[in-house]
Amino acid sequence: MLSNELTKLLKIDYPIIQAPMAGGVTSAELVAAVSNAGGLGMIGAGYLSPEQLRAEIHHVRGLTKRKFGVNLFVPSEYSVDEQKINQSKAYLRPMEQELGIEDHAPDLSNYLQDVETFQEMVEIMLEEHIPVCSFTFGIPSKKIRTKLKENASIIMGTATTVQEAILNQEAGMDAVVVQGSEAGGHRGTFAGDARHSLIGLMSLIPQTADQISIPIIAAGGIMDARGLLAAQCLGAQGVQMGTAFLVCKESGANPLHKNAILEAAEDQVVLTKAFSGKMAQGINNRFIEKLQHVEAELPDYPLQNDLTKAIRKAAAASENREYISLWSGQSPRLAKGQTVNELIRNIISEIEKAKIGI
Amino acid sequence: MLSNELTKLLKIDYPIIQAPMAGGVTSAELVAAVSNAGGLGMIGAGYLSPEQLRAEIHHVRGLTKRKFGVNLFVPSEYSVDEQKINQSKAYLRPMEQELGIEDHAPDLSNYLQDVETFQEMVEIMLEEHIPVCSFTFGIPSKKIRTKLKENASIIMGTATTVQEAILNQEAGMDAVVVQGSEAGGHRGTFAGDARHSLIGLMSLIPQTADQISIPIIAAGGIMDARGLLAAQCLGAQGVQMGTAFLVCKESGANPLHKNAILEAAEDQVVLTKAFSGKMAQGINNRFIEKLQHVEAELPDYPLQNDLTKAIRKAAAASENREYISLWSGQSPRLAKGQTVNELIRNIISEIEKAKIGI
Repeated sequence: MLSNELTKLLKIDYPIIQAPMAGGVTSAELVAAVSNAGGLGMIGAGYLSPEQLRAEIHHVRGLTKRKFGVNLFVPSEYSVDEQKINQSKAYLRPMEQELGIEDHAPDLSNYLQDVETFQEMVEIMLEEHIPVCSFTFGIPSKKIRTKLKENASIIMGTATTVQEAILNQEAGMDAVVVQGSEAGGHRGTFAGDARHSLIGLMSLIPQTADQISIPIIAAGGIMDARGLLAAQCLGAQGVQMGTAFLVCKESGANPLHKNAILEAAEDQVVLTKAFSGKMAQGINNRFIEKLQHVEAELPDYPLQNDLTKAIRKAAAASENREYISLWSGQSPRLAKGQTVNELIRNIISEIEKAKIGI
Repeated sequence: MLSNELTKLLKIDYPIIQAPMAGGVTSAELVAAVSNAGGLGMIGAGYLSPEQLRAEIHHVRGLTKRKFGVNLFVPSEYSVDEQKINQSKAYLRPMEQELGIEDHAPDLSNYLQDVETFQEMVEIMLEEHIPVCSFTFGIPSKKIRTKLKENASIIMGTATTVQEAILNQEAGMDAVVVQGSEAGGHRGTFAGDARHSLIGLMSLIPQTADQISIPIIAAGGIMDARGLLAAQCLGAQGVQMGTAFLVCKESGANPLHKNAILEAAEDQVVLTKAFSGKMAQGINNRFIEKLQHVEAELPDYPLQNDLTKAIRKAAAASENREYISLWSGQSPRLAKGQTVNELIRNIISEIEKAKIGI
């Protein structure tokens, strides 16, 4: 169904949401193109500063009059383990040398204030009256939820298990993104062990649909009309697509990243904690392989993310895909380098042809 | 679609295949009930002797006049590493003592003749004119494939990646079961690394459908009409269901196993090599937890399978679910203790209600 409870709730034409990928992928051009084509564009603000977020919102508003959303990472507890930090530095140093990076003290101070930054980001979402606010890595406090709802924002959470979906509903979230094990990028797991929360959508959607009544948005490996139809058969109302939009012409992803996806097969996509300290899925490369046997010794997210920043930056500058994160879902063979409008129009015309009766 | 190329090929009413679960689950009563209800019952012969296989075939033939199938494990290379065998014995010994098992020399000699046994099993399939012969853990030799086809058997293989599905088509298999990461029991991976072949069906089906033309049968987490419809939307013609049939009244699974599934949530299902030396999915228990940190040190399949036999047998006898394998797909919340007929009738009536137009 192209029109349902979810499209009414979000005030969009089609139940297609662009995943809020952080790290520069969700350019204002991408977000606006998705909303202009009838879906919901989302700013992935997880790594933005409050100033950058406000500028991005204004930039998107200059390109579309339609609804769009913003996603924030909910700060989670982590331990600062000096031994693990030093161990990680020792593992990373030879790679830094290979890339010509001078010895340096990584700045880990940012994250001491991340709860404060999160509050500032929420204030911006309130001031800017963002229509759809979504959250990953946890559920925001009752105070924040209430303020956003009073401000007429729709709030959405992320779940990787049935229990996490139930927690989202209990917290009064308006809809929940269920992230299957097919999904690229970071695992959203917040109430369990990430290794036991890798549930394929064929299992995750119907089991969740039997337990909650808020709309379910399926995320993971969905790239075309087949995936949207299948997700709806299983009990979701809509889909959130990341990789499919990442390879679009309007996305801000590094061309190295886009090409890596366009050339990859599904069995080159692997799970790793090496880049950030939190489990995430992407295309295998030398960085992941070098650290795969020591993942348990690496510091928590976001510390490891800071420690690997210099390597990722230098590798991007020298167009070296072996040392940047190449996040991708498990369906890279379905990726096409189209425009956002082509992608969405193709899905809609395929669905109209299928004339599905459910 | 309830009637399609696959149902014509297999000469069955509905595109529903009962997964050939080994180890006593596929009782003659289960196999016959599935075929009698319009699906395809399958004998899981992976651990049977040639004599047992022949007896099972005769038993099933006494209970149904309909088509049914037999699945064999294709023998694969493994190394006999004395150090790993001794290491495994040392890990298992305290558990054996806990279960009152006397010190014993495990019989590892069976597997020295497994290629020979496999040939004998194939001969039985030829003599008995088995309508559908399926294979896991590899593709049988050209000689065997030709003989079976000349004997009017339909032959099917198992794939966990697109590449494995292509290899099946190239070998002239009539259809291929694509096993998603949602599937319970052993991973069928034979041409890649099992850790990189855990692809969710939402990704695996459409990527495979784009590359091969033989019918695709989707396996993994499918328990009801929603899963069958979704699999067809993605490009499969039918489904192979394991866990859904395992919990049926007619199945030969241990009641401890059935109850464990009926009580489980999706995040209790884990991957382990501890029981057999080959990666498999099931409900977590003490045995899996005790060995999870030493899995890399365990001997290959089928050696580890033999080493753990005494523990599994003693635990079953004393109704201790902590030391038996509780194979399950990722959808245990969808399991119901119904009869086979109820399960299949419910799926068909739901699909007729959905009036899907694809």
